[in-house]
Amino acid sequence: MTGSRPLVILFHSDASDPRWPDAIQRALPDFEMRRTLDGVPPEDVAAAVVWKHPPGLLEPLTNLKLIQVLGAGVDHFLADTRLPKGVPIARLVDPGLTARMSEYVLMHTLALHRRLPESARAQRDGRWDFIHPQPPERTCVGILGLGELGQACAAALSGIGFRVLGWSRSRRSGMAFETYAGEVERSAFLRQCDILVLLLPLTAQTRDIVDARFFDEIRPGAALINVGRGALVDDAALVAALDEDRLRHAVLDVFRQEPLPPEHPFWTHPAITVTPHNSSATNPDTAMAQVTENIRRAVSGQTPLHLVDPAAGY
Amino acid sequence: MTGSRPLVILFHSDASDPRWPDAIQRALPDFEMRRTLDGVPPEDVAAAVVWKHPPGLLEPLTNLKLIQVLGAGVDHFLADTRLPKGVPIARLVDPGLTARMSEYVLMHTLALHRRLPESARAQRDGRWDFIHPQPPERTCVGILGLGELGQACAAALSGIGFRVLGWSRSRRSGMAFETYAGEVERSAFLRQCDILVLLLPLTAQTRDIVDARFFDEIRPGAALINVGRGALVDDAALVAALDEDRLRHAVLDVFRQEPLPPEHPFWTHPAITVTPHNSSATNPDTAMAQVTENIRRAVSGQTPLHLVDPAAGY
Repeated sequence: MTGSRPLVILFHSDASDPRWPDAIQRALPDFEMRRTLDGVPPEDVAAAVVWKHPPGLLEPLTNLKLIQVLGAGVDHFLADTRLPKGVPIARLVDPGLTARMSEYVLMHTLALHRRLPESARAQRDGRWDFIHPQPPERTCVGILGLGELGQACAAALSGIGFRVLGWSRSRRSGMAFETYAGEVERSAFLRQCDILVLLLPLTAQTRDIVDARFFDEIRPGAALINVGRGALVDDAALVAALDEDRLRHAVLDVFRQEPLPPEHPFWTHPAITVTPHNSSATNPDTAMAQVTENIRRAVSGQTPLHLVDPAAGY
Repeated sequence: MTGSRPLVILFHSDASDPRWPDAIQRALPDFEMRRTLDGVPPEDVAAAVVWKHPPGLLEPLTNLKLIQVLGAGVDHFLADTRLPKGVPIARLVDPGLTARMSEYVLMHTLALHRRLPESARAQRDGRWDFIHPQPPERTCVGILGLGELGQACAAALSGIGFRVLGWSRSRRSGMAFETYAGEVERSAFLRQCDILVLLLPLTAQTRDIVDARFFDEIRPGAALINVGRGALVDDAALVAALDEDRLRHAVLDVFRQEPLPPEHPFWTHPAITVTPHNSSATNPDTAMAQVTENIRRAVSGQTPLHLVDPAAGY
């Protein structure tokens, strides 16, 4: 605090719900909500609420107590090499974001399980191809990435009867389903799964993890849903796996470059479903509570919720 | 029973799981399972298990104690004017059939709610059209037909957060959601629903119920899922409603003529999803228990389960 001036919350996002700034100001009337640093003494800024900020934006903020990232994935954020040192960084754990993600994954898992892409092709060809409806118990879904979102998707899929397995780089305990960990257990996991759901954080270790070798290890004819990050997947290896029928279909919501460039082959590939990174989104109605709580905690010296470990990258 | 000859179970279906006859014989070893009446004294047949039988097939069976229809919808069956009089007729209430139907309706309701048909069109055009993901609570789903299947779909949809309303011709009580009944309450029901799910039995009263007047009463831009019977819908009125944007999209699993004829306009309409009557199917693994139980009940003088009222038509 500098004299009697109110503490400032800096908001920066180029892609979030437009209701955010007003919602924050209403929830925290003792603070001053600002959308730029113009005319703001940098030492007055106590908290920054950001999504896809320009690198270096936060560097001058010497009294910053909290950086609240407005999303679950923090890879873009951590790519900024000029972050102020020692300031707690929190990801958003938004029940709305988690629920929308579970619904998307459930919907596309059911669609792959019930062969809707094949059914759509049959319709285009005017073919009445009866495919016998199978119970979800016959389909094994593998979740890669067992954070908040992975666990919620696993619960939704198990709830409807799918067999669910999980994989993560480091061992996770206490899951209600069978889990595998690390390189050494990856192929035992992959060869059991009919549908793979990518929900890994993007880090130096997971970049391009879905490559030609990965597709050699999967169950032939498996399908893929990528709701993690585009750069988890080697685009050329994905197209090759589809063209060689090792992979049956891919549902992609995230891409190396977004919007997906017009000339990209994913747009027109018959075995790829493209959605415009709308599997989920944060929503002030459900996420505001964590943002408010975290700012109050940070300025009163308590530990904020859902802190990021910058060394691990997530 | 005629002398010491075993009682006969007649099985006739042109479209069911091929495992049925053997499964029935294994479950009821005291009976003789026959697939035709060739060489069978008609008075020996105690039970008939049928799906889409030729009219008149059952007329000579003077000692018949039960007709077990191998499905939930009995309209095709009751169209036979030469059924033996006074023989109990049972529909199949198969937990597997019910579960597959719920999964199909949940999947397509989510797809309509999350605007997947619009997303597929954007992909075909190479357009990155961000559509903000909405919570299911914002979408009202109306179920027309509140039998076993309608109730199960309502439970699955409510479970994930959709607002669910129900409509049936006669008043149903004891539902866990708001219900409307009859002609007089139909338009109050229709004008609230964003997605309509047709699960009505096909009777003289419901034939062509979804006609031009129906589409005048719906909420503009609503979507339709027909998993009941093709003849519930006036095909031309449906196409007109889509072409005039009163109806946003239709997911059709059932048709007046099946397979859907190659020249039918539904195949190529951009706002129609055609699936080949595979929303659900009976499965001996889950349905055998009811068939066995019903045959035992019928021959021992007990009332079979899930009896059909031929006068009501369902």
